[in-house]
Amino acid sequence: MKAGSKHYRTVWMKGSTVFMIDQTLLPFSLTTRQCRTYKDTCAAIRDMTVRGAGAIGAAAGYAMAQAFMSGKNIKKARLEILSARPTAQNLFYAVDRVCKAAVSSAYPSAAAIKEAQAIADEDAESCLKIGMIGEKLIKNNYSILTHCNAGWLAFVDHGTALSPIYEAKKKGKKMFVYVDETRPRGQGAKLTAWELKNQKVPHAVIPDNAAAYLMSQGKIDIVITGADRIAANGDTANKIGTLEKAIAAKEFGIPFYIAAPTSTIDKKCRSGKDIPIESRGQNEVLFQEGIDAKGKKHKVLTANPGSQALNPAFDVTPSKYITGIITEKGIIKADRSSIARILK
Amino acid sequence: MKAGSKHYRTVWMKGSTVFMIDQTLLPFSLTTRQCRTYKDTCAAIRDMTVRGAGAIGAAAGYAMAQAFMSGKNIKKARLEILSARPTAQNLFYAVDRVCKAAVSSAYPSAAAIKEAQAIADEDAESCLKIGMIGEKLIKNNYSILTHCNAGWLAFVDHGTALSPIYEAKKKGKKMFVYVDETRPRGQGAKLTAWELKNQKVPHAVIPDNAAAYLMSQGKIDIVITGADRIAANGDTANKIGTLEKAIAAKEFGIPFYIAAPTSTIDKKCRSGKDIPIESRGQNEVLFQEGIDAKGKKHKVLTANPGSQALNPAFDVTPSKYITGIITEKGIIKADRSSIARILK
Repeated sequence: MKAGSKHYRTVWMKGSTVFMIDQTLLPFSLTTRQCRTYKDTCAAIRDMTVRGAGAIGAAAGYAMAQAFMSGKNIKKARLEILSARPTAQNLFYAVDRVCKAAVSSAYPSAAAIKEAQAIADEDAESCLKIGMIGEKLIKNNYSILTHCNAGWLAFVDHGTALSPIYEAKKKGKKMFVYVDETRPRGQGAKLTAWELKNQKVPHAVIPDNAAAYLMSQGKIDIVITGADRIAANGDTANKIGTLEKAIAAKEFGIPFYIAAPTSTIDKKCRSGKDIPIESRGQNEVLFQEGIDAKGKKHKVLTANPGSQALNPAFDVTPSKYITGIITEKGIIKADRSSIARILK
Repeated sequence: MKAGSKHYRTVWMKGSTVFMIDQTLLPFSLTTRQCRTYKDTCAAIRDMTVRGAGAIGAAAGYAMAQAFMSGKNIKKARLEILSARPTAQNLFYAVDRVCKAAVSSAYPSAAAIKEAQAIADEDAESCLKIGMIGEKLIKNNYSILTHCNAGWLAFVDHGTALSPIYEAKKKGKKMFVYVDETRPRGQGAKLTAWELKNQKVPHAVIPDNAAAYLMSQGKIDIVITGADRIAANGDTANKIGTLEKAIAAKEFGIPFYIAAPTSTIDKKCRSGKDIPIESRGQNEVLFQEGIDAKGKKHKVLTANPGSQALNPAFDVTPSKYITGIITEKGIIKADRSSIARILK
């Protein structure tokens, strides 16, 4: 997608160097980081320079290709990449695919590069398809609510929840996007707002608390969010707060869609109850980071000193609140049989 | 209530000086501000040194008494106090009561002081009664969710939503309070957490997004919030986000109570549709204030530079989501006939 006048992917490879947008500096500065070795790329995955399931997967694939190109201890490199982020499904998948392609080829490093590139391209293509399919749900002059960031920054390109918005814009449809701030980390206010501003999509950041109020005022036509994991019955884990928006949407009769590639579906999870919820450190709730008028970064305590906080990172939205799942293979109902059918 | 080892009211008068806790400095510093003239007190109301319906009312009453004591132009002083905060019902009520008492007395300034004191005492008494009545809803080992700050800081003493918690604690009941951060201004994280810490009530700040998740996990037994205005049919305006919590509570079968003195009921509002919703400046959403590790205050931008924000300050929770209203006269149903009966 475009940032300023230039087209970017979140992560790409040129020669033996992996390039990526440094997402730790967004939205205040757009900087590209260069990773010359697989160790550099690992470090960038670890410190969240690159974030989001699809983008992490592509970066891991490229890191594995860099390891093959270096000709160093592949086994050690593989373990190092696999341990960069412990829960990223796409990371394991990409590393395995690149390794398999390399070891079954007479030209391991060429095969590894080709496979890593294919993984990145497939991610971008899936997301584009989600956009082209999901775009049909967005009518002219629609107001859309989205939660967290499921835009191109979380994938290689295009994104999931935001991809239908970008495709609708290409078709000349007019829209307005309400962007949930998405406390505690503020991915909505920081990343989704940044993406929408760059794509010239009219939008406003809202406090997470304001979503139901806007719904009650008839201001929201459709809700679209991403997904971190989808169980076999359609229950969906996503950023904390998604459940609250889904319940409110159902109460006000507003369609609530999840946008995600079919790779997000975890057949091994029979229902949402099988999805573990990560509990993160309380400082993400108690402290906030931003820039002052001079552009200098500060981390400030915004809560009562000495009070504790809880920070569940995700919640599970039961399938009964989900109108449909927008995948690269079509829009399906969030139920066991529809999900089984699309995975065949 | 106690702060440290000392008992405080939010606002009080001694001689001709009005004292108040400077709420703009909380939770980082507990400082008392002295207002020697009605003009000083007006300024403190205006700049939110004192905030919350009950506390503003008491401060306005004291300011009016200061004006009578000074013997200056009463008419001018009255207009000045009335215009300190344009929408505070309690402010108008207190100013009128003090003026009436003074002009019908042979000793205007003594009568004004007595009446101002009575207004403050009545506010504290109403809140204490709300606590004693509401306390019965809290069973031993209950987990309570509250939104925004409806504690003693918003009144002269005791508070509304938090008063039942303080009374339950006095009775030796064990509790845990989940405190909604309450973005954008963070009154939960800042003021409610400060109050609970001072009263030694176990609590945790949570992102507003986490409320429905905790409900889905069976972690919340009861929700209690305050009210800014209650319509004649029980529809209740309160801090933005209250509606979202009320909808989620109903979905999970959790009792949802409003705690407020009967003076919060506005008979002239037939339903929630008649309550205007204040839209505040977008900078409250885009910027956040806090202290750094050295205790220095900073205001930082925490959203994408150049993106706009919306900031509706309140929402209206329809009566169908409200289990009951805890008033100083008893707990009533949120319906037209119960409300008419209690106002008789």
